[in-house]
Amino acid sequence: MTNMDSVSVRVFSLNCWGIRYLSKYCPQRYAMIGEMLCKEQHDIVLLQEVWSEKDYLFLKKKLASCHPHSHYFRSGVIGSGLAIFSKHRIRDTFLYRYSLNGYPYMAHHGDWFGGKAVGMAILNLGSLTANVYVTHLHAEYSREKDSYLPHRVVQAWELQQFIRHTSAGADVVILGGDLNMHPQDLGNRLLRAYTGLQDSYLETAKFDGCENGMTLIADNPFISKKELVPFEKGIRIDYILFKGSSKADVHCDSMSTTKGSVPNHPFPYSDHEALTAELRLEPRTPAETGSDRQSKNKDSATGKLAELVDIVTEARTEVKVGLHCAERMRYTAARTGVMGLALLFLELVIAAVPYLALGAEQPFPRTSFYLLAVLCFAMLLTTSMLYIFYTMELKSLQEAEDQMRLGIGSLQEKLKGFRLAQLHNPSRRPPEVQEPGAFEPEE
Amino acid sequence: MTNMDSVSVRVFSLNCWGIRYLSKYCPQRYAMIGEMLCKEQHDIVLLQEVWSEKDYLFLKKKLASCHPHSHYFRSGVIGSGLAIFSKHRIRDTFLYRYSLNGYPYMAHHGDWFGGKAVGMAILNLGSLTANVYVTHLHAEYSREKDSYLPHRVVQAWELQQFIRHTSAGADVVILGGDLNMHPQDLGNRLLRAYTGLQDSYLETAKFDGCENGMTLIADNPFISKKELVPFEKGIRIDYILFKGSSKADVHCDSMSTTKGSVPNHPFPYSDHEALTAELRLEPRTPAETGSDRQSKNKDSATGKLAELVDIVTEARTEVKVGLHCAERMRYTAARTGVMGLALLFLELVIAAVPYLALGAEQPFPRTSFYLLAVLCFAMLLTTSMLYIFYTMELKSLQEAEDQMRLGIGSLQEKLKGFRLAQLHNPSRRPPEVQEPGAFEPEE
Repeated sequence: MTNMDSVSVRVFSLNCWGIRYLSKYCPQRYAMIGEMLCKEQHDIVLLQEVWSEKDYLFLKKKLASCHPHSHYFRSGVIGSGLAIFSKHRIRDTFLYRYSLNGYPYMAHHGDWFGGKAVGMAILNLGSLTANVYVTHLHAEYSREKDSYLPHRVVQAWELQQFIRHTSAGADVVILGGDLNMHPQDLGNRLLRAYTGLQDSYLETAKFDGCENGMTLIADNPFISKKELVPFEKGIRIDYILFKGSSKADVHCDSMSTTKGSVPNHPFPYSDHEALTAELRLEPRTPAETGSDRQSKNKDSATGKLAELVDIVTEARTEVKVGLHCAERMRYTAARTGVMGLALLFLELVIAAVPYLALGAEQPFPRTSFYLLAVLCFAMLLTTSMLYIFYTMELKSLQEAEDQMRLGIGSLQEKLKGFRLAQLHNPSRRPPEVQEPGAFEPEE
Repeated sequence: MTNMDSVSVRVFSLNCWGIRYLSKYCPQRYAMIGEMLCKEQHDIVLLQEVWSEKDYLFLKKKLASCHPHSHYFRSGVIGSGLAIFSKHRIRDTFLYRYSLNGYPYMAHHGDWFGGKAVGMAILNLGSLTANVYVTHLHAEYSREKDSYLPHRVVQAWELQQFIRHTSAGADVVILGGDLNMHPQDLGNRLLRAYTGLQDSYLETAKFDGCENGMTLIADNPFISKKELVPFEKGIRIDYILFKGSSKADVHCDSMSTTKGSVPNHPFPYSDHEALTAELRLEPRTPAETGSDRQSKNKDSATGKLAELVDIVTEARTEVKVGLHCAERMRYTAARTGVMGLALLFLELVIAAVPYLALGAEQPFPRTSFYLLAVLCFAMLLTTSMLYIFYTMELKSLQEAEDQMRLGIGSLQEKLKGFRLAQLHNPSRRPPEVQEPGAFEPEE
């Protein structure tokens, strides 16, 4: 049968570092990227940090013949920076904007303006339906004192929620992007454990690329070594993840990364390394489906479920830290606002009392009076806006925490069911059949 | 077989009009609502405009025994106002915040601060998995000159996208809420045609309630008749929608609305009428699934698909109008900002030139100088913020328009396939099997 043949899919992911006029050699690098993509003819190309629509349009034109289907995901002020190019027809797209994404006043970090999101595209690969996701999470500016950690954990939570809930109808799931998380970071563990997504670097049969699959390396001329401390050689923060379903198995036949330079070019494609994974999709027969599921479940379901409960609990703790912090900041904003109001009141009293009571000349120098009033108004305005912003941050953190609490409850309930089943009949499989490797309360 | 028994589910939906200190008789009405819900014991209670968390907690406490499971969806500044109470365990929740939701400076309309969203809860009803959605779209303040129409159409688009993409694994889909759209409004048609959701008012076997199923009626003492003009008796903007799947059929056995008053109480529960639908879920056997699908498809698939293409095209036109409008507003903001800057520059020149060139005394009165400078700064600040806001609005509108364009392309492709199949073999069913009534490019 034709639809039982395996399908080979080459997936490419790159953070393009495409800040016009700020990123070095931006136009030259896009030209290089376009040429390489034309030559390599990947099935699916997932790009991040394509901040300018003009650059997207340049690539779209350049790749018109080899990648006729594409979508540029727009959000925030300067766009999400996410783009997908595909050889295969894109049937549908959807965008989820993360509820938390840094602070607008941290303009030098710029993440808030980027409107970080996860984009989804649905396409057919052979007889299979593939949900392809591309995302870019909030950057980590300091590993020791990472004030954005709760935001990134909430983003990872929302990412796994989005993927889990939108991929029930998919035969194959592929996620590529810059997660800004090391392989064992909390958000990464949360994402993989909850969705069952597998890391192509860890699963690949063949690998050719940087040591430990690193994607931000000291050997890249655009990287300042100071930024990488204490990771001398580099870090791995870009990923291609995948997962099969009851209808298809997915294997990673080979994977590669660029190594900080491009032959015959004076500089690399970006400050990040590019990733390429060659996935083999093998449609399952209904018979395989049953037996395979059963054997997988018997082995490790309970252990994995217990681990997932621990990870979600850890994430919840992190969100609580964020909640505490946001509450403190909102309190500070409120207090400063009240001080501004008090100052304004005081000024008016000082100015008015001698004038009204004594009928004397205005003793307050006019200039100082106006300057002080302006200062008070500015204080009031700024603190009001901050108060509103922190309130929104609090709502999002609380929502994520609530969802996590509820999720932990569901998982524990399921765990109890598993354990009871094992107790009564240790050789039988758990009562509810699961996707291999994934624990989805809704499945 | 036990899991083939039909399940009866009573669903309740109410816009609670719960603005503390502003909505009339708010605490008394919540007490009434709580009592009624305790007595009625619906399976699923979907509430909107529960703006205060305190009121949610009051209900949670009151309903602890009859509805032990609940979730309050938090977003925006004052929360989404959405809450769900359930007799059945909620296994998972997820929230999608609409990308467009009015303007923060339209504070008297307040929608922006509400952070309108669609909340999802996954629960088991008998042997079936139900995805339950609750939502509240942007209000319509003027039907003749509805400046929020593009926002509401985008919300309806995102709502159908969210439901379509998250419900692939669900056996039953239920949506309740205040859509702020009349039955034949564009967004409503878009939602129903794309998802295949059915309107319980139109499908019910028995109905007891207001004429034409109206939910905002002139007979309600909290409603000013002026607001309803030109709809003398009222309008229908609250809905309970549902849909089955290949695993279950859903029928609406009865439906009712309140009629503007509550027996033995001086006023009704809210300014909106409450809706109750009694749904009967009938699990399908695998044999039924196949034959039923086939017969349904043969009849009307092509016609419905063509209609859907028209609706999405209409929605796209509306979004384009919104785009044009947002572009104009952004341009105005930019022009005003430039004027502020020019004024500031002019002022500095006027003040500096005589001072520097002639060494004369400062001719500019100090007070006017400072006041003018403050005015210029205020103009610059306001217009910058507006510019950023309109840019974000543009991005969201563009994203929706792009998704619609791509969606239309996919639907047309499918339509072509249907027609070709009919042409070659008029008695055969179309090549791709669909959910009854729904056209999901990803299925």
